[in-house]
Amino acid sequence: MDRSRFYTLRFSCPDTVGIVARVASFIAEHGGWILRSSQHSDEESGRFFMRVEVRADSLPFSFEALQERFAPLAQDMAMDWQISDSAVRKRVVILVSRQMHCLYDLLERWQSGELPIDIPCIISNHDDARGLTEWHGIPFHHVPIDKSDKAAAFDEIERLFVQAEGEVMVLARFMQILPPSLCERLRGRVLNIHHSFLPSFVGAAPYLQAYRRGVKQVGATCHYVTAKLDDGPIIDQDVVRVSHTDSVRDLIRYGKDIEKAVLARGLRHHLEDRVMISGNRTIVL
Amino acid sequence: MDRSRFYTLRFSCPDTVGIVARVASFIAEHGGWILRSSQHSDEESGRFFMRVEVRADSLPFSFEALQERFAPLAQDMAMDWQISDSAVRKRVVILVSRQMHCLYDLLERWQSGELPIDIPCIISNHDDARGLTEWHGIPFHHVPIDKSDKAAAFDEIERLFVQAEGEVMVLARFMQILPPSLCERLRGRVLNIHHSFLPSFVGAAPYLQAYRRGVKQVGATCHYVTAKLDDGPIIDQDVVRVSHTDSVRDLIRYGKDIEKAVLARGLRHHLEDRVMISGNRTIVL
Amino acid sequence: MDRSRFYTLRFSCPDTVGIVARVASFIAEHGGWILRSSQHSDEESGRFFMRVEVRADSLPFSFEALQERFAPLAQDMAMDWQISDSAVRKRVVILVSRQMHCLYDLLERWQSGELPIDIPCIISNHDDARGLTEWHGIPFHHVPIDKSDKAAAFDEIERLFVQAEGEVMVLARFMQILPPSLCERLRGRVLNIHHSFLPSFVGAAPYLQAYRRGVKQVGATCHYVTAKLDDGPIIDQDVVRVSHTDSVRDLIRYGKDIEKAVLARGLRHHLEDRVMISGNRTIVL
Amino acid sequence: MDRSRFYTLRFSCPDTVGIVARVASFIAEHGGWILRSSQHSDEESGRFFMRVEVRADSLPFSFEALQERFAPLAQDMAMDWQISDSAVRKRVVILVSRQMHCLYDLLERWQSGELPIDIPCIISNHDDARGLTEWHGIPFHHVPIDKSDKAAAFDEIERLFVQAEGEVMVLARFMQILPPSLCERLRGRVLNIHHSFLPSFVGAAPYLQAYRRGVKQVGATCHYVTAKLDDGPIIDQDVVRVSHTDSVRDLIRYGKDIEKAVLARGLRHHLEDRVMISGNRTIVL
Repeated sequence: MDRSRFYTLRFSCPDTVGIVARVASFIAEHGGWILRSSQHSDEESGRFFMRVEVRADSLPFSFEALQERFAPLAQDMAMDWQISDSAVRKRVVILVSRQMHCLYDLLERWQSGELPIDIPCIISNHDDARGLTEWHGIPFHHVPIDKSDKAAAFDEIERLFVQAEGEVMVLARFMQILPPSLCERLRGRVLNIHHSFLPSFVGAAPYLQAYRRGVKQVGATCHYVTAKLDDGPIIDQDVVRVSHTDSVRDLIRYGKDIEKAVLARGLRHHLEDRVMISGNRTIVL
Repeated sequence: MDRSRFYTLRFSCPDTVGIVARVASFIAEHGGWILRSSQHSDEESGRFFMRVEVRADSLPFSFEALQERFAPLAQDMAMDWQISDSAVRKRVVILVSRQMHCLYDLLERWQSGELPIDIPCIISNHDDARGLTEWHGIPFHHVPIDKSDKAAAFDEIERLFVQAEGEVMVLARFMQILPPSLCERLRGRVLNIHHSFLPSFVGAAPYLQAYRRGVKQVGATCHYVTAKLDDGPIIDQDVVRVSHTDSVRDLIRYGKDIEKAVLARGLRHHLEDRVMISGNRTIVL
Repeated sequence: MDRSRFYTLRFSCPDTVGIVARVASFIAEHGGWILRSSQHSDEESGRFFMRVEVRADSLPFSFEALQERFAPLAQDMAMDWQISDSAVRKRVVILVSRQMHCLYDLLERWQSGELPIDIPCIISNHDDARGLTEWHGIPFHHVPIDKSDKAAAFDEIERLFVQAEGEVMVLARFMQILPPSLCERLRGRVLNIHHSFLPSFVGAAPYLQAYRRGVKQVGATCHYVTAKLDDGPIIDQDVVRVSHTDSVRDLIRYGKDIEKAVLARGLRHHLEDRVMISGNRTIVL
Repeated sequence: MDRSRFYTLRFSCPDTVGIVARVASFIAEHGGWILRSSQHSDEESGRFFMRVEVRADSLPFSFEALQERFAPLAQDMAMDWQISDSAVRKRVVILVSRQMHCLYDLLERWQSGELPIDIPCIISNHDDARGLTEWHGIPFHHVPIDKSDKAAAFDEIERLFVQAEGEVMVLARFMQILPPSLCERLRGRVLNIHHSFLPSFVGAAPYLQAYRRGVKQVGATCHYVTAKLDDGPIIDQDVVRVSHTDSVRDLIRYGKDIEKAVLARGLRHHLEDRVMISGNRTIVL
């Protein structure tokens, strides 16, 4: 009995009587052993969300067969669904600018095996991160962003992402605004770490804004990127206490610790297929 | 469709294939609408824990009939199980000593309807809380504890609890150690708030112990009372930051805020039938 | 040697060389024993802020004499200053509406001696809090607020505050907006608890706003009331973690715990003469 | 006027009247501009603790002259004192074992300039960290620890520390117990990060201990190393919420985030000469 490999089924559908019964019966009929299961009935939208982990070795058929067999049930209940295999690592492309605290943090989690991902490449509008990236054996792409022709740079970034067969894009303090069309094409697949406790302090220089407002805690927010700046569905956020003795520079420094932790938590939730989007909110199962 | 009244089924049983399927199918067969469901598969003990809320008006029979019909399935799966009705308020007896911050806090939550409970009486080894209690229309019993014959006092307390048809006993800073036999008889029904972040600082004067050790955060722990002092299963705990500028008196003061919040959260989890005990740990579904 | 009675000197003045030396020398010359001292040099405004506690029994003259003798130094350094005597309780008038969790909380802190204040009266636009207030032996004033003539109600509230010789006004979930002129007259003396993590969710129904934005933590903010709604200098704030399982009602419930704790902390800082206002920020010494 | 270079004076001495006056007057006489000052009067020990930052360019003499001139005053008041120059970077030697999350974290803070230190070398009982260390241009020493002759290994570590002119030793998850004599010689200069909220779970496998006790939060503690295991003065500590769904492996993973942040904060306090030891407690000014 091997708990380490499992299939994760997740779906949402209109809420009604008997959903869990049908899904659980489908799994049980084939001898499927449920490791973890969680669900949420969203009162506002009237939708039902569910995530189930089934031990791979408890099923008598392949991953592909599982998908085939589940499809009719899914169609019948009008599900928006997906099944993933824990043995298949997700491909995560990281975008950074000049600040590297989130990059160091993600690289450590990757090299230690904490984050079970492949990083096919790292992309930056500066060359600072090249050395560290390449020392880790990861390809690095320097894509300068020319203010007079940003579109060209973002086309190149998208091309590199596609070429790398990227599934998830992480803006690890990338400091550039993605064009709306790209946000649309990668909807639900681009994670950003914003250095404030959203919705406070949208946009540039949030720590300076926070300092001026005289808040007593500063925060960070991991969210999906959408066409509207810093407005996408929030996956996770956290704060840290500050005081009048702290300068803007101190807020920035405290914030770094929160940014790293919140981005890593949000990314992990995403990678584990826990996050489902409902309107502008996330369900984290 | 009335979401406000529901039945809460909870159980634990040996983990195996098909538990969720059988339970969910049982509910679905009768048209039961699941409002909330959560489960936990405990790797260590090999047991499965589940809690389901079913809308009362979605079932075609009474609460009693539900219990009768579920019993065979429960027996078949060797469940330790229980069903409760959200329309039936639990009867909570509160024990206090001279400090009244937790009592004030619980009374406010009770009078505002936040805690949907009945408080048949409040018992204390001092008379200080009589006025406030009686002003709220709640009977107050003063049971002095004579150091030379504590057993008599605890017999009286137990008698009052039984007479009041108490289901839950809350030690809201009661400051007295219950006799082991009473702990045993009321196993899983007595909640205590201990004024430290257990397992640190068991026993008397935890804030003084915390001050002497020079910790940078103090905490509080809500746990079930067992025969071994401050060792029962933990339901919830929290901490608050302190510093060298804080005297023992300051720690006590900060601690009060945490005690109130943690006791209320722990109690609420218990009242909502979310807490299941597994060895010396709690599963809070 | 009695540490329990002390004078608290606090001031701000243009920052320059030798301020601490002059103030500390003045105190030392008269044998003054400093219990606590803290200061802040504000880089942005170029002002210096200081707060010193001096043991009353270490000085050879009265409180009045201390003020007289300190005045020339204060004038020489262009100080904005004030000295208070820990033996004189501040008079705090509390305004509430129908929700009473903050009121219960403050009353417990008052009756247990945790907050060393006098509460000359409690004022409300509803009659709900009368019983609890009067049971505590505190006068209660019901001042209904007629939507068509709010000015009259606020005139009455101000009259009651003045008549009660109130020094501090606490809006303990008062839910009404004070007229700008009153804010101006009581500048730096009216504390409000706002039920969001400001500057997020200004104005009405912040928990509903928070729910809709899908935040993962909700908060509360204690601030001085100014003419601009929810924009005054922040004294303290805190947050609590929430999730997709929480309804608006759950957020409100979690928020109550934070509101109580943050209001009490902010009020305590104010009462201990720790809070100085610099622009729209607070220095909490 | 250059705020970036300053001298930090810190001392403790028997508490009495006039200490601040004498120290502040000494500084003012020479035109010294105080950037920051904080002090603590410890009721229990009867000692006074103070830390002052004076702008270097405001004094008309050198760092050495400052020390010479201050010495008589210090002697007169029986001070335990020290002055440091912000322009002189402290030399920090880091010891690691096989887990590298704290090392990555410290290296990022060092390379980005957040931690203004020199790292003359990194020492480990394993060879895993060599590549990353040397890529950063820092010498790496592999000192295997032979269980049958640990003393030899620790002699070598001490020799390397002395040879590197190390001032501070950081055990960044070193997982080995330093011999008491070494602890004694480096008293107040060796910082450890312990992976529990001390005093809970001293010694080995704290996350397993935490899991078994069923705590609802796990923590980390940065403390000075003393001869008694995990018992030294605590500089900082923090916690993170966990639940019954978390396995020991999950606790370890959450704990890493706390360990990194707490070690970095504790180290920063130490490097800024904020931490003074009083018995087994720290004063963090």
